[in-house]
Amino acid sequence: MNQHIGWDDTIVAPATAPGVSAISVIRLSGSLAYEIMDFLFPSKKISEQPPHTLHVGYLKNGEQVLDEVVVSVFKAPRSYTGEDMVEISCHGSPFIVQQIIAACISRGARLAKPGEFTQRAFLNGKLDLTQAEAVADLIASNSVASHKTALHAIRGGFSKKMKELREAMIRFSALNELELDFSQEDVSFADRNQFYLLIDELKRTVSHLLTSFQLGNAIRNGVSVAIIGKPNAGKSTLLNTLLNEDRAIVSEIPGTTRDTIEEVINIDGILFRLIDTAGIRQHTSDVIETAGVERSLAKMKQADLVIYLFDVSDEKEEVVNQVFEMQKNNLNFLPVANKIDKVGESAARERFSDIEKIVFISAKEHLHTEVLRERMVDTVLQDKLDLEDTIVTNARHYHALKEVESSLADVKKGLDENIPGDLLASDIRRCLYYLGEITGEITNEDQLDYIFSKFCIGK
Amino acid sequence: MNQHIGWDDTIVAPATAPGVSAISVIRLSGSLAYEIMDFLFPSKKISEQPPHTLHVGYLKNGEQVLDEVVVSVFKAPRSYTGEDMVEISCHGSPFIVQQIIAACISRGARLAKPGEFTQRAFLNGKLDLTQAEAVADLIASNSVASHKTALHAIRGGFSKKMKELREAMIRFSALNELELDFSQEDVSFADRNQFYLLIDELKRTVSHLLTSFQLGNAIRNGVSVAIIGKPNAGKSTLLNTLLNEDRAIVSEIPGTTRDTIEEVINIDGILFRLIDTAGIRQHTSDVIETAGVERSLAKMKQADLVIYLFDVSDEKEEVVNQVFEMQKNNLNFLPVANKIDKVGESAARERFSDIEKIVFISAKEHLHTEVLRERMVDTVLQDKLDLEDTIVTNARHYHALKEVESSLADVKKGLDENIPGDLLASDIRRCLYYLGEITGEITNEDQLDYIFSKFCIGK
Repeated sequence: MNQHIGWDDTIVAPATAPGVSAISVIRLSGSLAYEIMDFLFPSKKISEQPPHTLHVGYLKNGEQVLDEVVVSVFKAPRSYTGEDMVEISCHGSPFIVQQIIAACISRGARLAKPGEFTQRAFLNGKLDLTQAEAVADLIASNSVASHKTALHAIRGGFSKKMKELREAMIRFSALNELELDFSQEDVSFADRNQFYLLIDELKRTVSHLLTSFQLGNAIRNGVSVAIIGKPNAGKSTLLNTLLNEDRAIVSEIPGTTRDTIEEVINIDGILFRLIDTAGIRQHTSDVIETAGVERSLAKMKQADLVIYLFDVSDEKEEVVNQVFEMQKNNLNFLPVANKIDKVGESAARERFSDIEKIVFISAKEHLHTEVLRERMVDTVLQDKLDLEDTIVTNARHYHALKEVESSLADVKKGLDENIPGDLLASDIRRCLYYLGEITGEITNEDQLDYIFSKFCIGK
Repeated sequence: MNQHIGWDDTIVAPATAPGVSAISVIRLSGSLAYEIMDFLFPSKKISEQPPHTLHVGYLKNGEQVLDEVVVSVFKAPRSYTGEDMVEISCHGSPFIVQQIIAACISRGARLAKPGEFTQRAFLNGKLDLTQAEAVADLIASNSVASHKTALHAIRGGFSKKMKELREAMIRFSALNELELDFSQEDVSFADRNQFYLLIDELKRTVSHLLTSFQLGNAIRNGVSVAIIGKPNAGKSTLLNTLLNEDRAIVSEIPGTTRDTIEEVINIDGILFRLIDTAGIRQHTSDVIETAGVERSLAKMKQADLVIYLFDVSDEKEEVVNQVFEMQKNNLNFLPVANKIDKVGESAARERFSDIEKIVFISAKEHLHTEVLRERMVDTVLQDKLDLEDTIVTNARHYHALKEVESSLADVKKGLDENIPGDLLASDIRRCLYYLGEITGEITNEDQLDYIFSKFCIGK
């Protein structure tokens, strides 16, 4: 691993969100952390306190009292960064936070860059790269699903999977090297069938992981949904019904509500983002016209999922034509027949029996809306994936795994063509390189800086 | 003291500002705090840990992992509230904060009301009322001065002063009671001269404190300033000069900058808020017209301080007339002659020598702007008060002290009129009542609820 520039110095940053609040926390990590605290916290020598203890007292910069604080003592290597580290819990005034940070800086610390605490944790071997990245994901998590996958990754679930892949590949490499060593003697120690089996297994695993990225992406960023239909189809009623059913189960805790303008529905822990919601609310998003769907196709193609809503009493031929148009354009869509309360459910079902995967609801009467919710989730959880599996949520991992897949294909091709072991070895190395890049066993400074620059400050 | 309703239950709330950040802290206080933690933190019995220690582990609600957290253990009575208390430091995701709080609530806690932690600290005798109020002031502090006065009050400086007043009054009362006890015998143990001396001393102290409220208010809320003058006077240049000189000494720490639209200048730790700044910037706030100041008087009267800026080459008579108008209208104003670089300082001084307290500057050339700054601060720090004194910053305290002042006047009047001791005693009691109300020795539940409702949640 590369030694990171400037990594011996002491860094400081606010660790909590800015704003007036009960308390704010400031993090200070590095070789000078205790020396700085011994100066700023004169009532007790922090450097001589046992690890994992709390100390209440006044923070002073010389004669100037900064605040009454609680200092948390963490000693290397048993700290987040792996270095000597303190957390200063002060009154939640941005002014005081600034004063304390300025005092730390005046005593030799410098302001931390975004993600620098986690970067140090990585460089000190406290976390591998996928775990470090999951820290940022965890902080950004806003649903049960994104929370779960990030926590799974932090706890090493994703790394474990990568390690298994890498070990299998190293086993494969070892067999190949063995054959190479004895290549002059024209013996084949390793059974090439065994090679095939191993490569096929690896390819299946990688392919499964790559497939999971669609779900991973949906978990991380939410699923964009367009509700389309004629003006009378009940789009706005459906939106309100879904939102109200969702909100009924969300408890309101002050200060923790999301303040987004976008309409977001949380179903089974997965966020569905309604695109062009303003349009729906204003009854103006009448993107399907009698003339056809062509004009609005661009808009629908932006969505991960299109809910095509129609009135059960609409003309059948028109509905079938539009379903056909959507199929032709390869849209991920869900046909939903609304207002079944008007004609009765069985009559409605009979009328549209030849449309596949149709859902019958009454948005107004909350009839079968739970079926619609399930089906929305099913469109995301395809291929029988579930949240307990290892899921790729990170684009960097996805692209590295794509490279792994391509190098595995090259290895397989090499086997097919019976190419010499030393040529095979180069493809194997490429595969190992990309696997190592995912967990950070192989990395470079620029890449690390890029990854950690996406973090928030103080993390 | 009244026993407070519902004060035996366990309360929980986020203690840090909402938002995505490195960490968030949740506070849990009350009799169930440890029982709840023992359930949610299964890897270690928090209830059996020594006080003032830190514990790292997973928070779980049954099988569901909530987060990896650090738990700070505080045991009654050595905690902020005086109760058993823990602080949970989790990843800074509003979603996770909500999940953890919901888990605590499901195990028997309830969401804390604003200021309820501090209210409990008060009810448990950890703080008196002025100290508790200073906690809110400290959190809201945004300048050296407001920070200093709040910290002074938290450390008991203000309470000490109130206690001294109260003790003097009790001494006075005791003398009076002594006289009452022996009133039948027509002897006068207490020398009435001594009474006078004590009352006069008390009156002087209270009056001094009441005077300090103007400064206290300026410290707490900033000093509103109107810069007025003719279009060519250089108002916008002066504003920019003051702002730039201020900003040059403010270090920028991410996440701690104030994001207010108002222009605020910090001079010697006191905030000056420029009213109608947009007008100044757009050169449209030409509130002084040749016709006179009447039309804009209402606007000027809103300001704590009016800076009347004119061009040294302006007609002298016009300037003198306007100064006279402002004096007549009892405005707190500072006459400032600008552009001395144009005519030379001594010529300028000679020209306007008969205007009192005038400041000569060149905003463009940064000439003597430091004198202007000093004079601005002087208008606030009148009566030789300084920040080391005990200063009344709280309107509640001010109004109670007003009552104290009025009851002291009644006592004095009673002494003058030689009224009987038992009548005097009722005025003395009134005086003691209001002094007790300030520190919370005498209080009622509604008043407490009102005071603490101004706090932020989690405090």
